[in-house]
Order: sequence, then C-alpha cells, then structure tokens
Amino acid sequence: MHLGLVGLGRMGANMRARMRERGIEVTGYDRNPEVSDVDSLEALVAALPSPRVVWVMVPSGEITRGVVEQLSTLLGEGDLVVEGGNSHFTDDAAHAELLAARGIRYVDVGVSGGVWGLTNGYGLMAGGTEDDVAALMPVFDALRPDGERANGFVHAGSVGAGHYAKMVHNGIEYGLMQAYAEGYELLTAQDIVTDVTGTLRAWTQGTVVRSWLLDLLVEALEQDPQLATIDDFVEDSGEGRWTVDEAIDQAVPLPVISAALFARFSSRQVDSPAMKAVAALRQQFGGHAVRAAQPPA
Amino acid sequence: MHLGLVGLGRMGANMRARMRERGIEVTGYDRNPEVSDVDSLEALVAALPSPRVVWVMVPSGEITRGVVEQLSTLLGEGDLVVEGGNSHFTDDAAHAELLAARGIRYVDVGVSGGVWGLTNGYGLMAGGTEDDVAALMPVFDALRPDGERANGFVHAGSVGAGHYAKMVHNGIEYGLMQAYAEGYELLTAQDIVTDVTGTLRAWTQGTVVRSWLLDLLVEALEQDPQLATIDDFVEDSGEGRWTVDEAIDQAVPLPVISAALFARFSSRQVDSPAMKAVAALRQQFGGHAVRAAQPPA
Amino acid sequence: MHLGLVGLGRMGANMRARMRERGIEVTGYDRNPEVSDVDSLEALVAALPSPRVVWVMVPSGEITRGVVEQLSTLLGEGDLVVEGGNSHFTDDAAHAELLAARGIRYVDVGVSGGVWGLTNGYGLMAGGTEDDVAALMPVFDALRPDGERANGFVHAGSVGAGHYAKMVHNGIEYGLMQAYAEGYELLTAQDIVTDVTGTLRAWTQGTVVRSWLLDLLVEALEQDPQLATIDDFVEDSGEGRWTVDEAIDQAVPLPVISAALFARFSSRQVDSPAMKAVAALRQQFGGHAVRAAQPPA
Amino acid sequence: MHLGLVGLGRMGANMRARMRERGIEVTGYDRNPEVSDVDSLEALVAALPSPRVVWVMVPSGEITRGVVEQLSTLLGEGDLVVEGGNSHFTDDAAHAELLAARGIRYVDVGVSGGVWGLTNGYGLMAGGTEDDVAALMPVFDALRPDGERANGFVHAGSVGAGHYAKMVHNGIEYGLMQAYAEGYELLTAQDIVTDVTGTLRAWTQGTVVRSWLLDLLVEALEQDPQLATIDDFVEDSGEGRWTVDEAIDQAVPLPVISAALFARFSSRQVDSPAMKAVAALRQQFGGHAVRAAQPPA
Repeated sequence: MHLGLVGLGRMGANMRARMRERGIEVTGYDRNPEVSDVDSLEALVAALPSPRVVWVMVPSGEITRGVVEQLSTLLGEGDLVVEGGNSHFTDDAAHAELLAARGIRYVDVGVSGGVWGLTNGYGLMAGGTEDDVAALMPVFDALRPDGERANGFVHAGSVGAGHYAKMVHNGIEYGLMQAYAEGYELLTAQDIVTDVTGTLRAWTQGTVVRSWLLDLLVEALEQDPQLATIDDFVEDSGEGRWTVDEAIDQAVPLPVISAALFARFSSRQVDSPAMKAVAALRQQFGGHAVRAAQPPA
Repeated sequence: MHLGLVGLGRMGANMRARMRERGIEVTGYDRNPEVSDVDSLEALVAALPSPRVVWVMVPSGEITRGVVEQLSTLLGEGDLVVEGGNSHFTDDAAHAELLAARGIRYVDVGVSGGVWGLTNGYGLMAGGTEDDVAALMPVFDALRPDGERANGFVHAGSVGAGHYAKMVHNGIEYGLMQAYAEGYELLTAQDIVTDVTGTLRAWTQGTVVRSWLLDLLVEALEQDPQLATIDDFVEDSGEGRWTVDEAIDQAVPLPVISAALFARFSSRQVDSPAMKAVAALRQQFGGHAVRAAQPPA
Repeated sequence: MHLGLVGLGRMGANMRARMRERGIEVTGYDRNPEVSDVDSLEALVAALPSPRVVWVMVPSGEITRGVVEQLSTLLGEGDLVVEGGNSHFTDDAAHAELLAARGIRYVDVGVSGGVWGLTNGYGLMAGGTEDDVAALMPVFDALRPDGERANGFVHAGSVGAGHYAKMVHNGIEYGLMQAYAEGYELLTAQDIVTDVTGTLRAWTQGTVVRSWLLDLLVEALEQDPQLATIDDFVEDSGEGRWTVDEAIDQAVPLPVISAALFARFSSRQVDSPAMKAVAALRQQFGGHAVRAAQPPA
Repeated sequence: MHLGLVGLGRMGANMRARMRERGIEVTGYDRNPEVSDVDSLEALVAALPSPRVVWVMVPSGEITRGVVEQLSTLLGEGDLVVEGGNSHFTDDAAHAELLAARGIRYVDVGVSGGVWGLTNGYGLMAGGTEDDVAALMPVFDALRPDGERANGFVHAGSVGAGHYAKMVHNGIEYGLMQAYAEGYELLTAQDIVTDVTGTLRAWTQGTVVRSWLLDLLVEALEQDPQLATIDDFVEDSGEGRWTVDEAIDQAVPLPVISAALFARFSSRQVDSPAMKAVAALRQQFGGHAVRAAQPPA
C-alpha cells in the first residue's frame, strides 16, 4: 500500500513514521520543506499509484477545506481522500459531496492518541462506505494499537460518523480530566493525606479509577510535584464545545461535560464580569464589603 | 411591648430603629458602648419587664452560643429568647434545650432584607410553638413589610424551622444572583447589545425576570457601568454551603445552587490546582503547550 | 398611529388589545378568521396608511421567515417591518437584508411579559437604527409598562440586538426558575419546615429573593399546594438552548443556566441511557445490584 | 504472617482468598457460619498469635463501630486493628482513640478494586504510623496488584488518611462514570454513529479515554447492547456525598463530581418536585400547557 499524507505536524509526522515502520509506503507533503517528502500537493498526487489514496491531516476548518478543494481538482475517479483531522462532523458531508462530484471517494477518521500514538498506536473511528473503509484496512491496521482490531478501530457509520465519534470521545475526555483534577485539588487542600502524588500513583493499578490519563497525571506530578511550573490556564480546541452544542441539539443532558468545558473558560479569565456582578449585588443588598479591583500588574 | 436586643451591628441597629418607629420599646445591648443602650447583658435583662423577651442578633456560631449561654443564667421561667442571627438550623435544638432546662422559651427567626430592611421591612420566618410565636407577633408586625402579614412573615414550623427556611432562602439567593450574573456577562461579551445597563434596566418592569435583585444590579451598574471598581472576588457566609450540605443529606439534586456556590469558591482562587492539573494532562498526552506559571506579582 | 399586526395568538391578541386601549389603531391579521380583522396579508397591507408599519408576531423560524418574505413583496420603500417573535438573533440580519433590498426598514423586538403583559405591560428590547426605533416609539410606549420609559424599554443596539437581549433574558429566566424550584424541593424534602407555601409567600416582600416569578410560584402553590396535578415534565422553547450555544461561542461560562437547561432535558426522559450506563458500570465493578428495567406501563 | 479478618462478604471473602493464595494465614470470622472459619469474634482473637492483627471489613458506620468496640475489649497492648471498610475518615480518629486507650494500634485502609480485586489485586491507601504500616506490609503486598509496590499501595498519611484518599478516589469515580455515561447517551441519541458498542470498544486501546471503567462499559454493552435489562436507577453508597461535603468545607469547587452525584439523586426520583415547580411557573407566566400528572401505575 502506498499512501499520500498531507500535513506532517505533530500528529502527521508520527503517523508517517508508524506507517512506514509497519510496511506502508508513505509520501508526505507539508508546507514546511524540512519535513516534506515532495515539493507540492501536485507532486504528492503524481507520486501515488492509482487509485490514489490521500490522507489529510491538517488543522480543521478552513485549512482542511482548502486542501480538500485542491484535491478535488488534482484527484479523479476512483481515488480516495481520508480526512483524519479534528474536523466537525458536519464538514464531512460537504467534503464528500464536493469530491463525489468528481467521482472521488471519501472517508472521515477520528484519530486519538496524541504524541503517544507513534509507539502505542492510535485509536481510530472511521466513517464511510463498507468498500471504502475496507480499502483502507491495511492503513488502519498499521496505525491502530497491536492486538485485536476491534480494540482500537471501529467503522462507526457512514460519512461523518468518524468525526462524530471523535467529538464525543473528546467530550468524555474533558469530563474525565476535570474529575481527576477536582479530586487532585481536594487532596492538596487539606493536610490529612500527606503523600498526594503517591496516592495518585497507588491508584494506577487495581483501583476503579485506573486509566491512561491517571498514569499521565502521575507522570506530570513526578516531574513537578506541585505543578509549580504550570499555569492554571487551559485552552480548549473545539471538540468539547461541539459536544455540548450537539447535545443541546439532541436534548441530551451533559452536566459533567459542560461543567468541564466551563471550568476551562473560567480558567482563562483574568477578571470575571459575572463574579464582579455577584460581588456588586452583595454590596447592594447587604452592605457586604467588596474587594476593590486590583490595578493591572 | 418592650424588647431587649443583643447585637447592634448593621442588622441589629436598623432593626432597633424600625421597631422604635413602630412603637416597640427596645433596649439594645452591644459590646460597643457607642451604640449600646446599657452597659452589660445583666443591665439589659434588669431593664426588661417580666416575662422578658430578648432578641439575639449576633454572629452565628460561637458568639451566638455564648450569648445564649449567658442568657440561660440571666433569664428565668417564662422568659423568651429569640435567636435571629444567621445560625445553622441544627444549633436551634441545642439552644432550645439549654434554655428549656431553666424554663426559658425559645423561638428562632430567619431575617432577610439586608440594609434595606429599615425602610422596606424584613422578611421573617419563625420557628417555635404557637404560643411563643403568638407572643412575639407585635414585634414581627413591626419588623415585617407593611401590607398583608402573610407577605413577609411565616410561622414556618417548630424550633429550627425559621433558620431552615432562611438557609433555603439564601441558597436560592445564590442561584438567582449567579443567573443574573451569567446573563450580564454574556451581554458584555459581544457587541451586538451596545446598551447593557439599559437592557437590564428595561427588564425591571413587565418582564419575567423582574425582581429586587435585578433592581439592585441596575443600581450598581448605574453607579459604575463597567463594575470597574469591584473585584471579581466573592465571599460566602455559610448558608449556601449549608443548603448544599443539607440537600446532600436529603438526596435532593441542587445543580444550580451548587454551581453558584462553586463559582464563588473559584472566584477566590488565585491559582486553581485543578486547572493546573488539566493543563498538565493536556501537555502530557497531546504535547499541548502550557502557559508557564506567572511569578507572584 | 396605525399599525398592522400579523399573528393574533396568545401574545398577539393581547398586544392588540393593549395597543387599542392606549390609542394605537391596530389592524390584525391571523390565519384564523375568528380573530382576524382582515382576510389576508394583502388586505392588511392595503388597510395601512403609508409609510406602513407591520409588526410580525408569529412562531419563530420558518413561519416568521415566510411572513417576512411575503411582506418583502407586499410592502415598499420606506415601510417598516417589526419582528417581535422569539426569533434567534442571527435570523434578523437575513430578514433586514431581504427587506432592505426593497427599501423596507426593519426593527427586531424582544417582548417579555407572557399572558400578563396585557395588564402589566411588556418589557421591550429593540434592535435597529435610531430613526426606525424612534418612529415606533408611540407603539413601544403603548406596550411597555406605565412609569419611566427606561424601566420597560431599551433600544439595545442595531438590528439583532433586540432578539439577542431577549435570548439572554430567557436564559436568565431558566436559571431563576430552577433556583426557586431547587429551594422549593428542599423545603418539601424534610419535615422541619411544615408550611412550605407560607414560607414562600413570606418571601414575597422584604426579602432578597422577592420577585415576580416568586409571586407566581406562590400563586401556583395556593391553587395546588402539592402541585399534584402537574407533571414534572418541562418543555423548552429554544432561547435557553440558544443562550448556552452563544455562550459557548463566546467562551463565557454559564454553569447555572446550562444546569437549568439540562434539568429540563432530564425531566422529559422516560429512561436515561446515561444513568443506565452508570448502573451497569456499578454492577460490573462492584457486583452492585441493579434494578431490573421496568416493563413499559 | 497470620491475620484475623472480620467480615467475609463480597469484599472480605475475596480478600481472604487472595491472601491465602499468597501465603498469608487468615482466620476469618463472619456472622454467617457458612463462610466463617470460627464461631465468634472471641474465637477469632484466640486463634491469633501475639501481637494479634485483626482486619475489619464490615459495613461502615454503626456496624464497624460495634466491631471496633468489641475488639477494644478483646485485644490488648500491642495488638493492631486494621479498618478496611468504606468508613468516613472522621470515624478513624474516634476508633484510634478508643483503641489507643487500651494500647491497641490502629491503621485505616481504603481498598479499591471491587469484585475484580481477587484476580487483579486491590488498590490500597493506608493511614497510620510508619511502624504500624510497616508491620502490615506483607499483608498489603499480598493484596495489592503485582508489579511495583507504589502502583497499588500508598502510605497516604497518619490515621484517617487511608479513608480520606479512598473517599476522594470514589468521588473521582463518580465523575468518570458520569462522563462516560453522558458520552454514551449522546452516541445513542442520533443515527450517525451506528455502531455504538464498537465505538466504545475501539476506544479501549490507543485513545486518551482508555481506562478500566471503559473496558467494563464495553463488557456491559456486549452482554446487553441496549442496556435493556437495566433500570436507570443509580444508588450511591456515601463516598460521593462525603467528597462533596468535604470539598464544601475546604472551599474547593467540584462542579463535575457534584453534578455526577446529583444525577444519581435525580435518577432515583419518580417525580421531581423541582421540575413540577418549573412547569407550574411556565404555566403561570406564559400560559404554557403543563402535562397533567400521571396517575400512579
């Protein structure tokens, strides 16, 4: 199997390496010539045997859209585009339609595993037709973790299902991280439990809460026991928002996942207008003292 | 009616003034001689006709407990203690028992209205026997808002019920304040609605969300349109915590009131260990950049 | 002033009545001939003096869109459409653009007050140009509560601002209702407070939590003290969802308003897949008994 | 090493089996003679070499208290009681004090692992003095998972720390379970992802959300793909409540863990007074239809 891979950032470069290790021939293209195997998307396409398979692994939104549009002009009948970025699932129908007009097939894949996927393998969720997914099976087998295929790969449904599944995966991830974080904070808030890192590490085997995220939290704490070097400022990259938006559309209650999302929003606020308003209200009705706003540092 | 009043702080002093305006004779005692009518609790008790009625309006917890204990030695058979502070409802049984051993009667009262009670009257929730509450009716009528007695006063149940009702009142108050505050923040977060204060003011009549708290928020914004002088740091004085604790004991879900309580806790954190942990986790699995902890200002 | 009013349902019919009482001439059109003043939209337009002013008060979404489209063909240069339904604020730009192509002016208005608006007046939030809003001032003055204009009316910003403000108003409303409801539930969950309705009624004057919603809750409880005739099934009509969606777009944390929304979603579930999953997990790890699913009634 | 074990229920019996397999001599006592090795607590104590070590593994609260009290009269100077049940951490100080008065040592241990501990080993968190914990190390090593001691065992602090750590562990567990459950529900709410069980199974390797709880959820779904046999009724056994109570005492925000706890409370309600109140309010202000209460089945 010979695959074209567009996008050789943190995820793409590792995926290329893993696929090559496992016998997939990969020609990679990136705007950065230092990591790219070819000079252009045209050159990438030219390098591939027919039917050509191109895996797109670039930032979601406009950049992905742009690459898909370019590929729609460069590829042809029977070729296959795999979109593996963190795209919103509603983008997939548009991509598939655009490509289908040229006879180009389309599969969307949610990819989980972060920087560890290179060694551990990636969890993969694919959306598309039976035939298109089957055609990609050697690639999926190279990328997924060793062991049973079903533990690490699913054909989740038709086009869009891969990204839908990945979106929900990430929503769950927000909830899990916040649950551990809240427990960690409570452990640090008192002085009964004196070995916080040891306690979390003791949970990594045998307990109900053992997980890969817990292993990583222990790792972080062993590197920096008070997390003293890390600011309490947490980005979000979209999937958590999409999960809550989608749940609202489906009237599915998500109290935990939404709370985790909002905690991130709050973490990034220097000043909360809402809490200023609550302080102002307490002052108004009760004459409670407010703390004067701090001058900017 | 002649009442003894212990505690002449923000609440007590205003209550004394309102009762006097409405024909209740009040002898007040406070540790601060500048506001006190008498020199000591002994002098207060000596000044009252029998059966003596003493209203306690001091900070809850140990201070209230101390005053009740003193009164248990100074008062006697048939006298009546009214405990109107923000005490936890479980304190009332202990107070009542202590006093009952000496034949002293006990009524607990939840008092709402803050600094505005002087002019508007106070919302009152009483706990005690029919007879004891009836004996205090002239006092309650002086303190409650004008108009129908039932709009401003309730005999909520036996001893403890007044403070229980006040606790729930304050729990609701947390939720209401946070709801307005969240809406206010959303109004400030975008530039479609350009007159935020005017919008809130327009809501003060006719709308579903009109309330006294909304009036106060408009007041605060008219004084300081960006709330620029007020820090986003919000204290909590106990009743919100008690409400959530009690709901947990009763297996009653309180998602909104608890969220409002937790928002206050978060508002007081300079640094959130939980969010540091989430940031650390994202770095571990995804290689996501973390923001380096800021050196203390 | 002579106004055309499209839509004479619960809200529209009351608004017609209030405007007529206050000297505004109103010609109303509704598909239901029993309440309609004219036979058709064409007839409505024909009945109005130039420049014609037509207030649209029909269900949001496709129905509103359809009426606006029809009006774009029936009205002309200098006429003015007022859209007062519960539309999403993003619909307004499209409406305004469609009408502007024909020289027709557009103002969006958020209207609050429910069935009580007829007697109390409606809280109004308008979005549009200074001139267009000024032209409608006699109508707004008829609809808003008596008293100061600013307490009941705001020109919130340009087109879309009226519906944006109304969306946030309703989001807050969700939070307020849930806060009272949680407190009410806690009062019913124990037997210390024996007069629950009386307690809520006592809060209607003097207290910090007094509000119109509280008055209504007392009303409901006086009609049906256990709410025994009312099912715990709560609809949502869109604005709560929009508020949370918009907050997510703006990265504004809304823990209380979202919790209130999710409580409604949960209230409508006969069976919660999430809680089945939690029960299944407890059984798996702990051998905890699960309750067998109940056969459908 | 020869240990006495009181309580041979689901947890105790498995722990006895695991310890015996690993060379610890165990004499077990249970009120149920079918599983008990001896006839009475007295007989258990008599069977043990000095200094005697007795591990208590019975339901928390009064039953544990009763056993500890009995042991305080049966054991003596230098003996050691290990309390491994799911007790509240504040019980430990009382137990330790009672026993210390007789010269009996005390260690509390949080034990996680459920029915799987027999084969996988148990995660253990111990509270007590260095010497007392050291004396129990052979027992801990038999019970904990194989591999590095620190992955499965921690000496968390002095008396009470074991149960404190276990409390937090279980609080986190609530949050984790709810996060998976919410994601699962969203997957079932739409028809884009058609293979829900397969999707969850694909997440068990390589992904960020992989964990033992996820493995168990997949197990449950493979046994019953719709969870059709399981009711959406979820018990809570105390540690989640304690975690939130303790966080409130420490002013630590726990939005996720509390939301998970409240979701369980809601799951057990046949009828929600809060949501009846919200429905009643909507009817009052908006004339919105309510659903009539259903007659009991």
